[in-house]
Amino acid sequence: MRLIDHHCHGAVETPLDRAGFEAYLTESDRAAPEGCSAFDSQLGFAVRRWCAPVLGLPAHAPPGEYLARRASLGPAEVNRRLIEAARVETFLVDTGYGPEMPIYADSREIVRLEAVAEALDGVTAAGFAAAFEEALPAERIYGYKSVIAYRIGLDFDPEPPTKREVTRAAGRWLRQGRPRLTDSVLLRHLIWAGLERGLPLQFHTGFGDPDLDLARCAPALMTGFLAATRDRGVPIMLLHCYPFHRQAGYLAQAFPHVYLDVGLAVNHVGARATAVVAESLELAPFHKVLYSSDAYGLAELHYLGAVLFREAFGAITRDGLWSPSDAERVAELVGSGNARRVYRL
Amino acid sequence: MRLIDHHCHGAVETPLDRAGFEAYLTESDRAAPEGCSAFDSQLGFAVRRWCAPVLGLPAHAPPGEYLARRASLGPAEVNRRLIEAARVETFLVDTGYGPEMPIYADSREIVRLEAVAEALDGVTAAGFAAAFEEALPAERIYGYKSVIAYRIGLDFDPEPPTKREVTRAAGRWLRQGRPRLTDSVLLRHLIWAGLERGLPLQFHTGFGDPDLDLARCAPALMTGFLAATRDRGVPIMLLHCYPFHRQAGYLAQAFPHVYLDVGLAVNHVGARATAVVAESLELAPFHKVLYSSDAYGLAELHYLGAVLFREAFGAITRDGLWSPSDAERVAELVGSGNARRVYRL
Amino acid sequence: MRLIDHHCHGAVETPLDRAGFEAYLTESDRAAPEGCSAFDSQLGFAVRRWCAPVLGLPAHAPPGEYLARRASLGPAEVNRRLIEAARVETFLVDTGYGPEMPIYADSREIVRLEAVAEALDGVTAAGFAAAFEEALPAERIYGYKSVIAYRIGLDFDPEPPTKREVTRAAGRWLRQGRPRLTDSVLLRHLIWAGLERGLPLQFHTGFGDPDLDLARCAPALMTGFLAATRDRGVPIMLLHCYPFHRQAGYLAQAFPHVYLDVGLAVNHVGARATAVVAESLELAPFHKVLYSSDAYGLAELHYLGAVLFREAFGAITRDGLWSPSDAERVAELVGSGNARRVYRL
Repeated sequence: MRLIDHHCHGAVETPLDRAGFEAYLTESDRAAPEGCSAFDSQLGFAVRRWCAPVLGLPAHAPPGEYLARRASLGPAEVNRRLIEAARVETFLVDTGYGPEMPIYADSREIVRLEAVAEALDGVTAAGFAAAFEEALPAERIYGYKSVIAYRIGLDFDPEPPTKREVTRAAGRWLRQGRPRLTDSVLLRHLIWAGLERGLPLQFHTGFGDPDLDLARCAPALMTGFLAATRDRGVPIMLLHCYPFHRQAGYLAQAFPHVYLDVGLAVNHVGARATAVVAESLELAPFHKVLYSSDAYGLAELHYLGAVLFREAFGAITRDGLWSPSDAERVAELVGSGNARRVYRL
Repeated sequence: MRLIDHHCHGAVETPLDRAGFEAYLTESDRAAPEGCSAFDSQLGFAVRRWCAPVLGLPAHAPPGEYLARRASLGPAEVNRRLIEAARVETFLVDTGYGPEMPIYADSREIVRLEAVAEALDGVTAAGFAAAFEEALPAERIYGYKSVIAYRIGLDFDPEPPTKREVTRAAGRWLRQGRPRLTDSVLLRHLIWAGLERGLPLQFHTGFGDPDLDLARCAPALMTGFLAATRDRGVPIMLLHCYPFHRQAGYLAQAFPHVYLDVGLAVNHVGARATAVVAESLELAPFHKVLYSSDAYGLAELHYLGAVLFREAFGAITRDGLWSPSDAERVAELVGSGNARRVYRL
Repeated sequence: MRLIDHHCHGAVETPLDRAGFEAYLTESDRAAPEGCSAFDSQLGFAVRRWCAPVLGLPAHAPPGEYLARRASLGPAEVNRRLIEAARVETFLVDTGYGPEMPIYADSREIVRLEAVAEALDGVTAAGFAAAFEEALPAERIYGYKSVIAYRIGLDFDPEPPTKREVTRAAGRWLRQGRPRLTDSVLLRHLIWAGLERGLPLQFHTGFGDPDLDLARCAPALMTGFLAATRDRGVPIMLLHCYPFHRQAGYLAQAFPHVYLDVGLAVNHVGARATAVVAESLELAPFHKVLYSSDAYGLAELHYLGAVLFREAFGAITRDGLWSPSDAERVAELVGSGNARRVYRL
């Protein structure tokens, strides 16, 4: 099954001690309780089950052995092995957050809208919109990404703000000393400015780190926005979606420009990936579902997403309710064809 | 497994070209993206898997062959074959929307409240309530249906509006030239007027076409209304429910007058029907779950609902956790007994 | 699999007729519709499947036979047999609601905050906080429980009320004649006063009896409160959670002090327990999931929870994706180790 990973981050190439490694195994920003370990999770078990053999250890090797082996191979070799084992043709990388992608992976850039705006320098309130427009990269990039879910939730006003509102909001933001963007007018402006470019626009939806309020990250909260944008020809990519991936499947069926993945979830649910991927393929047409890992920090996650997705897809089709050639076609679409078409790769 | 389909629409008896047929395979009001097809979905695969043999083709016949065969047989013959193959004793048909039901099916009428109100003619503001009362059919019908979910969502005020509020709202509506009803006072009035009749009252809940906002269609949003009506002896039928069918199962257990189905979903999730039907049978008592297809436009959907529901039910009971005679009793209740009892068929 | 049941209620030791027994098989406060029975449910089937043999009957014995056998053995003997068959080491019992726990079970006390407040006598508005503080047991108890979900929902203001607000709210409550507590200031005060004690604090979340509004019982609605309390070192135990247990699993991963169970659900979904337990083990780290039955009234429920949880856990691990020794460790954690650690048993 050929794979394009349409949403991930980079991987660190510095050595990691146990605490450092465990921090990447959880969305929490706190360590596990005293005496507990982030390895005791579906993700931790999946790393030991699938990644250990890539590093030359038996499946299910204990955490200590795994980390010792990882250290002795060195992070560059570990990353190379895992990225190669993933057999992913192309990674689309959110470059606005996290470490860089290892150079031996074929990666393309997705630009995080908020990161561009927050890096604007020497801007005035009246000049904010034009400065953002100019700063927003257009060449050799494949899409944009919004993390409005993290900042204010997905129940945002579906209409674009007026120029005057944007100027006023930019003025407030500048007077406050340009803090992390949480102003709904500016966040919405970034989205609408991104839409103008015509490239696919990714949205974080569903679970993530504790910086978000899950109750406000259900993708159905975007219904008004999706209705307002449905005839613009700009693909809207709903990322992650879990545990609301069935809602996302509905949106992908109802709206011609809506796509989804269950990235991040596939890695975190480990042995349960088959159930989650199967649910993501209920209402969504097969030309609307994509693969992503949402790997962040560890090359284990770039590899694991790929192996879990392939395993899940295989298990789903083994019940014989689809014909073998249909199963193959869906594998082609979901694994890479949809990404190739939507991102024009 | 004897089946009564307690909620469906009619089937067209005119020829359909590929675009026309595909339009019925999706809840979207837009065509699939360039180069994509609505056949590439669980529903499309299920049509080819299960309906092709009824038309004399091998299972999984390609879309082109299927449509050619369909055209050569002619829509009347296709409908007859599929409706007969469904082996459904009785169809309860929402006559307020869509084509008529083929005459060779045993069908009974469910009246859509909004359609009756919107067809009122020569009415005054003060006379609206009485005119609706008079226009609302009572003879030879088996229930009413509300699509308030589509119009304003299920988080409506659970109390009935006063007469004065109804008159005032009717006045506004008349002055606006009697548009599609979206006034919450009038929509609520229709529901309470329907309740007076004592027949089962169906509510659209969960997913549907993009005219609705899924975030406002979760059946638990009706909790206040269900509490306010629980001792009136009028059955409330929660239709579709997906992806909130587990919520609906809870409501069916908690409230003596609440029933549910996973119609529409069963067809759209195709090979995943077993999972969805199983979830609908978690909290809901077995005397509270019904079968429906929510078929609309294509006789394929009347057939497919029946075959997928029977297959799903069979798979659920094969794990041996119920005794065979218990499984048989539940099949009788869910397949037809509950509908027979509630609708007095 | 060693089990600690970290949340349950007592069991009646008086004889029960059929209506009395059926009332404990449903969360509804109404009888099943005419001609229907609460035995026709996953819970009813599970009682007949698993409890009948404990009373010396064949599995799946009909309800009439089961109740006759139960009556002939007498409630004390029935309770003794079922509690013993459960092989539960310790029951943590919510003593604020329902019958007492049979004496031959090793039980420990969890104190319901609202029950303590509602029993306060001779209190003044200004003295409410101190009186509650004094009345709240601290010795030989293992945790507190809040039913704020039932009273106002989980979307409560995450900040503690001020002293002045508490006094004013207590004044209102006293003037009203000390009704059932539904005042959000007082309910929040109880929670924050409970937190001061440092013992685990249980919250009802998800489904329950029809006294609650399920739409307001989704645990993600507590996100602000969980963020506000994350560094206090007080474990927050999300009980039941269904059908929002995947949300709860996320919260258990994201926040260092959040734990969950799928008690109540495990019994009510019967043959579907494997699916529900598996979903509860997706995002939640394995040191964050606990076993509970939420048994109430019938010793059948104390037994059934245990047998269904053991069966479910066994089925989950049979797919071979975890190593046998990992599966054993998770069984130890989830079955009893986590409860032992968190409640300091």
